[in-house]
Amino acid sequence: MINANALSKWTLAGITAATLMACGGSSEPSSNTETQAAAPAKTETIEWKMVTTWPKNFPALGTGAEQLAQSINAMSGGRIHVKVYAAGELVPALEAFDAVSRGTAQISHGASYYWKGKVPAAQFFTTVPYGLTAQEMNSWLTQGGGMELWEEVYEPFNVMPLAAGNSGTQMGGWFNKEINSVADLNGLKMRMPGLGGEVLADAGVTVVNMPGSEMFTALQTGTIDATEFVGPYNDLAFGLYKAAKYYYYPGWQEPGSAIETVINKDAFTALPEDLQLIVRAAARQANAEMLDEFTAKNNSALETLVNEHGVILKRFPDDVLAEFRASTDVVMEKVAANDPMSQKVYDSMKDFKEKVMKWSDISERAFVNARAAE
Amino acid sequence: MINANALSKWTLAGITAATLMACGGSSEPSSNTETQAAAPAKTETIEWKMVTTWPKNFPALGTGAEQLAQSINAMSGGRIHVKVYAAGELVPALEAFDAVSRGTAQISHGASYYWKGKVPAAQFFTTVPYGLTAQEMNSWLTQGGGMELWEEVYEPFNVMPLAAGNSGTQMGGWFNKEINSVADLNGLKMRMPGLGGEVLADAGVTVVNMPGSEMFTALQTGTIDATEFVGPYNDLAFGLYKAAKYYYYPGWQEPGSAIETVINKDAFTALPEDLQLIVRAAARQANAEMLDEFTAKNNSALETLVNEHGVILKRFPDDVLAEFRASTDVVMEKVAANDPMSQKVYDSMKDFKEKVMKWSDISERAFVNARAAE
Repeated sequence: MINANALSKWTLAGITAATLMACGGSSEPSSNTETQAAAPAKTETIEWKMVTTWPKNFPALGTGAEQLAQSINAMSGGRIHVKVYAAGELVPALEAFDAVSRGTAQISHGASYYWKGKVPAAQFFTTVPYGLTAQEMNSWLTQGGGMELWEEVYEPFNVMPLAAGNSGTQMGGWFNKEINSVADLNGLKMRMPGLGGEVLADAGVTVVNMPGSEMFTALQTGTIDATEFVGPYNDLAFGLYKAAKYYYYPGWQEPGSAIETVINKDAFTALPEDLQLIVRAAARQANAEMLDEFTAKNNSALETLVNEHGVILKRFPDDVLAEFRASTDVVMEKVAANDPMSQKVYDSMKDFKEKVMKWSDISERAFVNARAAE
Repeated sequence: MINANALSKWTLAGITAATLMACGGSSEPSSNTETQAAAPAKTETIEWKMVTTWPKNFPALGTGAEQLAQSINAMSGGRIHVKVYAAGELVPALEAFDAVSRGTAQISHGASYYWKGKVPAAQFFTTVPYGLTAQEMNSWLTQGGGMELWEEVYEPFNVMPLAAGNSGTQMGGWFNKEINSVADLNGLKMRMPGLGGEVLADAGVTVVNMPGSEMFTALQTGTIDATEFVGPYNDLAFGLYKAAKYYYYPGWQEPGSAIETVINKDAFTALPEDLQLIVRAAARQANAEMLDEFTAKNNSALETLVNEHGVILKRFPDDVLAEFRASTDVVMEKVAANDPMSQKVYDSMKDFKEKVMKWSDISERAFVNARAAE
């Protein structure tokens, strides 16, 4: 029972193949043909299929999948070969998890919140409104028990998860109406899938569900007043500045979205220990590289949006952010209470967040505020 | 011409061996003796010595070196074996770089600012006052040209650097006097090595140089009024709360200190390509793991310091932070102007910082402020 709308954020009929191909990336495995001292003896190659939830070479996400595959292939010295399939090439985007579960593919690259219709607790492992930043999410996963919970959530499906990327804090969305106070939320028609949409509904917004492919036209024609997407790097490529004038921040609904790679357990345990560790390290490397890329490339895209396309940056007013915060608590408690595993994951994440915030508040948050002061 | 005082921050005669050993970690390589399908054929093992600038099992730093070695060993399937030497075991801490340069050791684990007496531009690759956060530093290195500059700086010494850890934002230091305004900086006697100390001196502080081993007693007896160290996790272990009452934030002088691994070029290029990539991925993994550990463990240490030891947390007043910011600009321009390579690195880092701040300001900084609002 996958909610197709959850994925629509990423299914980008509006992006032309040319735009995507121009973003580079290659599925060719790194060559390692030279014979050198201490090279591993070539045995038969293990062939893995990687299914993804992204269009081919979708900036940072589709290309991130390609890089992950390449680094597994190269580090294994050719003992394993991972071939990447874009969404729809082998199975549709929304069937990636099932394909790995039943062994049609050995590995996938996507986001866990796409599987919430099948596994409600899965959505916590991407991001939640007013949740953890990328750095905090990584720390919760590896040091705070998050990874063990994620494994437990996926266990019944004979698959295991690894973190394989992060978008960093996203944007709050594209608006054709100014939001000057909580009163402006009433009657606002906004497209936002997932938990963010539930929070908006609780705060009085009329949440409109539609596939990503219809979003651009709906915004342009006034069927909706606003929509969220990702951040400058992806939103510039999608051309959303042509349909809306105001670009609101911060992205309270997705403060640091984790990307996952899911691996069939039979395929993983059949690997010798060194290859298992190589797959893990490659995912860890991909996890860091994607955040580096978003951190660097969002800058120049933001500059282009503002300077070349006249986009107006606006911060949500304090009372609106407070309203979203209050609604987030209501919605998250309700979502957690609906499912015992969700409750367990939510409690762990909430406990970690409360603790880590006490440290972040006097370290990095205090620093970046001091650095930015005039 | 290594400045011995630069290292004194980390040379901890005051920490007993028992304290350090209690922090866990092991130098045993992971066993991989089972014969499995597709395992690499065993050839002769390549033996590498890793020299470090840390006491054995020093929290997160010494243990980080051990983890890096273990993951190289395990991922290589035993084809390479890295043995770790704590500071002083094979060479003194401050000779780690030279040992790798001349091939006495093949790899090191430490911090680049220890080598500023020999290579002035090296210090930029750890951190600079009011510089980049951990996430921004990683992004500058991999996406903003930082890594290429770091390689260029180390090239004449026949070694290559890789990032292998980050402390995250540190604390501003331990004080026995309250700092209520810029006026309180005059006559304040503070120990702070490196660029932070130069900034303090410019701001009117009397900067006192002394080895780390003398710091505790000097603070207790009033020879100095204040000292910086690291953050709660390390400072709790060092017991600094017994010598000073006020713990100031934020750590403007070290907003995200990168840890390095330095590799002898002849040793690295002798590796087959797959092992080279394994070493790179292991460093990348270590880089992320250390930040995860500091992010998680600083919380509980902070709680202990405040709740069990009565430490008083204080934020530097706005005018003091502004004074440090202004002095930072003066000092950094001067340091850069003294050496062409330093100027080149500083210009690149400054340019990246200006751009990335524009994005951080409306994404993560805006988010964490909204999340923390009452």
